Amino acid sequence: MATLFSRIIAGEIPCYKVAENDTCFAFLDINPLVKGHTLVIPKREVDDIFDLNDEEFTALHLFAKQIAHGIQRAFLCKKVGEAVIGLEVPHAHIHLIPIQKESDMLFSNPKLKLSQEEFAGVAAAIQAQLI
Amino acid sequence: MATLFSRIIAGEIPCYKVAENDTCFAFLDINPLVKGHTLVIPKREVDDIFDLNDEEFTALHLFAKQIAHGIQRAFLCKKVGEAVIGLEVPHAHIHLIPIQKESDMLFSNPKLKLSQEEFAGVAAAIQAQLI
Repeated sequence: MATLFSRIIAGEIPCYKVAENDTCFAFLDINPLVKGHTLVIPKREVDDIFDLNDEEFTALHLFAKQIAHGIQRAFLCKKVGEAVIGLEVPHAHIHLIPIQKESDMLFSNPKLKLSQEEFAGVAAAIQAQLI
Repeated sequence: MATLFSRIIAGEIPCYKVAENDTCFAFLDINPLVKGHTLVIPKREVDDIFDLNDEEFTALHLFAKQIAHGIQRAFLCKKVGEAVIGLEVPHAHIHLIPIQKESDMLFSNPKLKLSQEEFAGVAAAIQAQLI
């Protein structure tokens, strides 16, 4: 059965898309820690990120780097943090999180509740900063 | 002034080294969240990981992938988690953390206290699993 993320890529489940290329896809985390919290995934369904072959692994990380630069320009943040946990959805994904302080990265924090308009605005703000 | 990590690479400050190549270096986090918690850094002193050029960024992540496989083989863990926060030491670094559950990645958790022998044993266990 297709993972939740594969169904998002296929358009069967809606998302706030940020960007995509031939092999990768970026969209907003629907349970964000902070505004701008984005997920970057390979289109190929692989559970463990370290099981991607070197070419796929490189393509995913360079795509994530582009998105991170967009997030950095769109939001006033000290850094864009990166996290791969991989125990929630069996489809490799990189969390990109604009942070002001280390505790902004704590996944135990309560998640933000954003309206549809706010999510759409966040996605548009990042897209506008992608080169 | 050289960063703490540059001084570790130069051997001015001791560490429990796991591996190195021409451009990258891996060593144990001295304040580990769990046994096997490793830091992977570029030898070139760059604060923000996303400021590495594409070649350096790719080399660092492919090196981290090799180390992650070694950690995965050395420790019984569900996944090797990856985190980049970047607010502590101004020298880009990837945390690799063998995890059983999401909360193993919480940087708010108390850090493990290991003896010198335990640290050396952890480093040797990972080294033995590097191909």
